[in-house]
Parts: sequence; C-alpha cells; structure tokens
Amino acid sequence: MMNLSICLENVRTKTPLVHNITNYVTVNDCANILLACGASPIMSDDPEEVEEITSICGGLNINIGTLNGQTIESMFLAGGRANELGHPVLLDPVGAGASELRTDTALDLLEEVKFEAVRGNISEIITLAYGNGTTKGVDADEEDQLNASNRDSVIRFAREFAEEYETVVAITGATDVITDGRRVCLIQNGHPMMSRITGTGCMLSAMTTAFLAANPGQPFEAVCAAVCAMGLAGELAHKRLSPLEGNASYRNYIIDAIYHMSGAQLEEGARYELL
Amino acid sequence: MMNLSICLENVRTKTPLVHNITNYVTVNDCANILLACGASPIMSDDPEEVEEITSICGGLNINIGTLNGQTIESMFLAGGRANELGHPVLLDPVGAGASELRTDTALDLLEEVKFEAVRGNISEIITLAYGNGTTKGVDADEEDQLNASNRDSVIRFAREFAEEYETVVAITGATDVITDGRRVCLIQNGHPMMSRITGTGCMLSAMTTAFLAANPGQPFEAVCAAVCAMGLAGELAHKRLSPLEGNASYRNYIIDAIYHMSGAQLEEGARYELL
Amino acid sequence: MMNLSICLENVRTKTPLVHNITNYVTVNDCANILLACGASPIMSDDPEEVEEITSICGGLNINIGTLNGQTIESMFLAGGRANELGHPVLLDPVGAGASELRTDTALDLLEEVKFEAVRGNISEIITLAYGNGTTKGVDADEEDQLNASNRDSVIRFAREFAEEYETVVAITGATDVITDGRRVCLIQNGHPMMSRITGTGCMLSAMTTAFLAANPGQPFEAVCAAVCAMGLAGELAHKRLSPLEGNASYRNYIIDAIYHMSGAQLEEGARYELL
Repeated sequence: MMNLSICLENVRTKTPLVHNITNYVTVNDCANILLACGASPIMSDDPEEVEEITSICGGLNINIGTLNGQTIESMFLAGGRANELGHPVLLDPVGAGASELRTDTALDLLEEVKFEAVRGNISEIITLAYGNGTTKGVDADEEDQLNASNRDSVIRFAREFAEEYETVVAITGATDVITDGRRVCLIQNGHPMMSRITGTGCMLSAMTTAFLAANPGQPFEAVCAAVCAMGLAGELAHKRLSPLEGNASYRNYIIDAIYHMSGAQLEEGARYELL
Repeated sequence: MMNLSICLENVRTKTPLVHNITNYVTVNDCANILLACGASPIMSDDPEEVEEITSICGGLNINIGTLNGQTIESMFLAGGRANELGHPVLLDPVGAGASELRTDTALDLLEEVKFEAVRGNISEIITLAYGNGTTKGVDADEEDQLNASNRDSVIRFAREFAEEYETVVAITGATDVITDGRRVCLIQNGHPMMSRITGTGCMLSAMTTAFLAANPGQPFEAVCAAVCAMGLAGELAHKRLSPLEGNASYRNYIIDAIYHMSGAQLEEGARYELL
Repeated sequence: MMNLSICLENVRTKTPLVHNITNYVTVNDCANILLACGASPIMSDDPEEVEEITSICGGLNINIGTLNGQTIESMFLAGGRANELGHPVLLDPVGAGASELRTDTALDLLEEVKFEAVRGNISEIITLAYGNGTTKGVDADEEDQLNASNRDSVIRFAREFAEEYETVVAITGATDVITDGRRVCLIQNGHPMMSRITGTGCMLSAMTTAFLAANPGQPFEAVCAAVCAMGLAGELAHKRLSPLEGNASYRNYIIDAIYHMSGAQLEEGARYELL
C-alpha cells in the first residue's frame, strides 16, 4: 500500500509555491484549490518573467486550455528553466486533438520539456501518443473510456506512454489510471457530477503539481494521492448537496472538501487498486 | 404559444458543444452555466486555432467584453468559418458605445458575419443601430429602458434592427424584448438583483448560443426560451437567499437553478407576451 | 475619529464606475465585490481603448498580477489619462520583487503616474521603496510583517513612502498600516483565514478605488474605510462558516458581507487606532 496521508500532509507542512501557466477559464478555481490543499499559487505567463517566476517556485503546472502565441512561448521558457532547476513540471494537454495548435504544442512540449507527470483524459492522452485523437472538445469520448472490455489495453497503453516519456501519466475518468510505467494504480474515487462543472481536471492538475513539489522523489505516490484526494472531495461534496443545489454549489463544496481534508480522511476514503 | 419546454430539453439531450470567444471576467460562469443547461463549453481565442475549434462545435458565442487585437482577429475568423458551416453565431456587444474600438468592432462584425442572434442591453443595441450610443460603461442607461411611454418606439426600433441584420435581437432589461422582425416577445421574468452580479448578460449569451445550436431552424423560440430560463433562474435563486446571503451566493444559486430547471418548470414559470 | 460610515454610503449613493486593468485570476471576484459595495466595474486592457474607457469612469485600479507587454502599455496610457482628468488611480503591485518585470513596471508606474493610493503587502511595498525586496511569490514574508518589535520602524517606513510618492499607502497584513505621510491608521480588522483564499488583496484594491472615486478630497479616510470594510467582511464571513465550509464558501461569504454592510455596521465593527 501507499502512504497517501503523508503525501497530503507534506503539502500542508511544506506549503509549496506553484507556478501556473494555465487557462483563464478555471484559473481562479486552480488558485483556490491550491490554497485549499496547503500550497500557494502564482500565475504568470509573460515570456519576459516566467523563468524568474518559476525559479522561486517549487513546481510548474502547464495547462494549454486557452493557449496563445505568447503563452506558448512562456510554456517552453518556464519548462526549460524548471527542468534546469530540477523542479517538477506537469503537463495538462487540455483539448489536445481538438486543434493542430493544441496537439502540436503538447507534442513539442513533450519533446523539449521533461515532465514529472502528464494528466489528461483518455482522448487527450491518445492524441499525444498517436498524434491524432478522436477528441471532440475538451471532454473525453465515451468510447475511449476505461471499461471491462478495454481495461487491459488501456493499462498497456498508459504504461507504454509513461515509459516512452519517462513520466507518471494520469488518465482520469470514471476509473483513473495512474502509472509510472512499472506500477499501475486504478482509482475509483469520484462522482459523475464532477463532469458537470468546469475545471475539475484543471484543478486536479494544479493540485497534483503541489503534491509533486512537496513529495520529491515520489512522483507516483504524489500523483495517486492527489487524484484520490480530488475524487474523494467530489464524493464528500456531493453528499453535502441539498435538493436545490447544482453545479455552482458543487464546485464550491469540492474546494471546501479539499480545504478540510485530513491525511487520515484521505487514507480512509481512498479507493484504489495497485497492479 | 411557444413550446419553451422542448427548446430546453433539446439542449439537455443534444448536449451541444459551444465555442466561446468571450471576456475573461465572467468566463468561468459562462462555462458553468453551459454545463448547467446541458451543453458543453470550449473557450479558444487564438487566431491560429479558432477556425478548427469552431468547426467541431455546434455554435459560436462572440462576446467583446475584454476584446483585444488578437481576439478581435479571432472573432472574424471563427465567425466566418461558423457561417460557412451553417453554425449559429451570437453576438454580445458588451460595452458597445463605451469606446470606438468596441463600437467599430461590433459594427464590423455585424457587416461581415451573419448572426443568428444579437443580445445586449438597450444602450448597446442603440449604439449598433445609430453608431453612437449613450452607453456609460457596460450597464444600460436608465432613460433608455423600456417603459410605458417608450414601449412602442422600443419595439419598433428592435424590429427594424432585426430586419436590417436578418437576426433575432434580444434587448434585455427589466422587460426583455425579443424579435426576429416579425414576431415580438416581451418577457417579464427576472429580478432586479440580477444587475448586482457580474455576468448575467454574458451567461445568458452563452446559454442562448446553446439553445440556438440545439434548436436549428427555430432561432426565435430558442432565444425566447433561453431568456425566460435565465430570468426564471433569477427568480428562483432569489427565493433561496437567506438574510446574510448577497450577490456572490446569488450568482451560484442562479447557475444552480439552471442546473435543476426542467422543461415543465420553465413552461410554468415563463412570463411572456407574444405580439 | 473618522466617519467611515459616510465613505461607504457615498459609494452606495454615487455608484462610481471603476476601470480595472487587473489580473485574470481574481477578476471575477473584483467585479462582484465592486457591485457588492455599490460601484460598477468595467474591465478593459487593450491599448487602443483604455484611454477612452477610463475617461467615462470615476477611478482606475491598476493591478499587475498577470501583467504582460500589452497590458503594461495600457496601464501607462490609462494612468496618464486618468491623471489628466483628475480621476483617482490606485496601484496594486502584486508580486513586485518576484520578477524584474514586476518590480520595474511598478517602479516605472510610480514615476510616471500619480497614484492616489498604493496598496500591497509589506514585501511588495519594501520592494517599491528599495528596488529589491524579499518577495517570495505573491504573499508577504512573515519576517516583514508588523509586530511589536518592528512597529515603529514599519510606521516610519510607510510614512516616508507616502511622503515620497505623495500618496496614501496601505500596507495590509495582520495589522494594516495606512498613512498619507502625516496621519497613520492601524487597523486590526480581518481574519487569518483570509490568506487562504485568492484575491482578498485584489478585491480590496478594486473596492478601495471605488471608495476613492466616491469620496473626492478624502483619500486617507476613503482608504481606511475600505480596508476596515474588507477586514470586517472577513470577520463576519468567518462567523457564518459551518464545519464543512472552507475557503470557497468563505470567498462567497466575504462578498456577501460587503453586499449587506451598512454604514452603521462598518462604524461599529471597525477596529482602528489613529496615530
């Protein structure tokens, strides 16, 4: 078994500063969930300053959700500097497959920057692996999702991806698949309603970067802990919902749940299987 | 009478993907209200990718709230492509009249892109019609609002605007005026407190685009249904407010109300008059 | 004693329009808190329009939280025009000291634009005064915070800064220090949990600009009233929190508290000392 509890507690005690080059849609939620888990956020995407900014941080979260010419340049600059300094860098390839710009940017980043973790839905990761996915927008295609009949092939695919890029890949969905190429963790936490709010993936990526920064040398455990924490927050938040509350309240409750989550609660609520 | 119920249910069953080129102030709320009504959001504003992105979507929402040189270019590119593909495009001319850049951009867009709907407050639409409005900021001037004494002239104005641009125009305010140039719908739903939160107009524009995408060939009904739904959500949300709750809670409750709104509830709560 | 009550009531009755060139992380909260206190927000950062936009506003809030080449140009243009028109301008030097770009931009702004107020944490203001701070990210260093042993030197420092730039400086932290170079106000309102949500500083800066716009000729009182109001809102919001509620709910409750705050409530709840 893994000690997820310590991974979370390390974030709370080390309070890592996380540099985010991320989309403007969900950026406020990313900042608040970083604060909720014990980390500190800084957002900066101008090429003139991103190397300096990332130097004073503990980790870098690159999210291509609303990329543009200027922020793309910043992603490469910050990624390069973070690599030089040995800071963990995470890639969230939002919408890879939905445009050439997104696919090419994500692939180029994977070539030029060493990522400690890559987190996306199955369609996005397939796009990264094969150069052309079946992505329709920013949500995963249902046919690609992990299920009983494709389980083994999805796991094999994830392992090969992790090996090729020497990274921890987190393919999130109803069942999350995390692997560093050797170990595989299947996570069952979460709630279907999480797909009805924007930014659960972005928030998870930001939070995962904080877990990586606070748990050096243990990227696999750190990613698993962050993914379990996010899924568990989705479950706890759903229990709080009263009949009139919908996705806006749910978003707040998920962040609230992270704010109050203890190591013991995470350990007890995590539902995962190590292969 | 119109069948508003079916318009909403079509969004929930068809789950259209909506491309938003929108301002960064209210973008998160736009994404969440799209998810609340059953649609899916994608935000993208880089000229290199907007044509591709809009191609995989069912509708395009153009909002000039925080326009800049780069996003303006993207508005024309995406609008042109959406027109070629026959996708509905909506214009929200936020702050038209407040600067030449906004007025000129909105007018140029109206010339070069075919809009299935235009939604704004009375000051913004007057600016589009006469090239110089009385806009002070992003809120409508009180003197321009529909009232008993100017009712007929506002309706005539809206009709002429709709005819000239072959569009459905929605002039929203205390009483909303919707017209396709022939039919006119006056809507009484809503609550004054909606003007105390940022983004009710932007959210409505995003949601209206989803209604247009899910109800092809029925733009007038689709716009009326979306405007009624937003106003009704404002009423339902206001009823939920406890004494300490203010505009931040209200924002969440409006999105929550859309999340839970059924076709029957919309049909029953809609308060409109067809002329 | 100061009449804080009137400062707030002036915002509610005059409903000033505030131009914000601000970061995209907390911009929605800034807009909603402006509406909550009775003002109206407009966000605009394109060099082509910012001079026009600021001309129709009552005040300008410049926040460098996610500055870039284009928005920096807009800050100087809008600042210059606002100065010509005699509109109050506020500077929030977010992250000054964290990168040369931020430090240099803030210092250049201080040289070229006349600010009626500057609001930041102690590390940011030290950076502005000495050109190189100890800033680590966007939060203040603990060692710099006002405490019993450094109280006199922090107050002297703040006074000198205010004198040099002929401005009202607000150094916010556990104890807030406000001074126009002559009078000094120490404010004890607030709650430690405010540092666990993103944007309390940004929201305060936006709201302070509204207070300045609505209280011409009284910048010291206006800044003190805004800082007290924000701190008191943090206290009132904290009292509302139930056991499962965390920083996301807290953010909403702070804005809600501003929405409902009366002049009398502010006067009664303000905890300050005039030196």
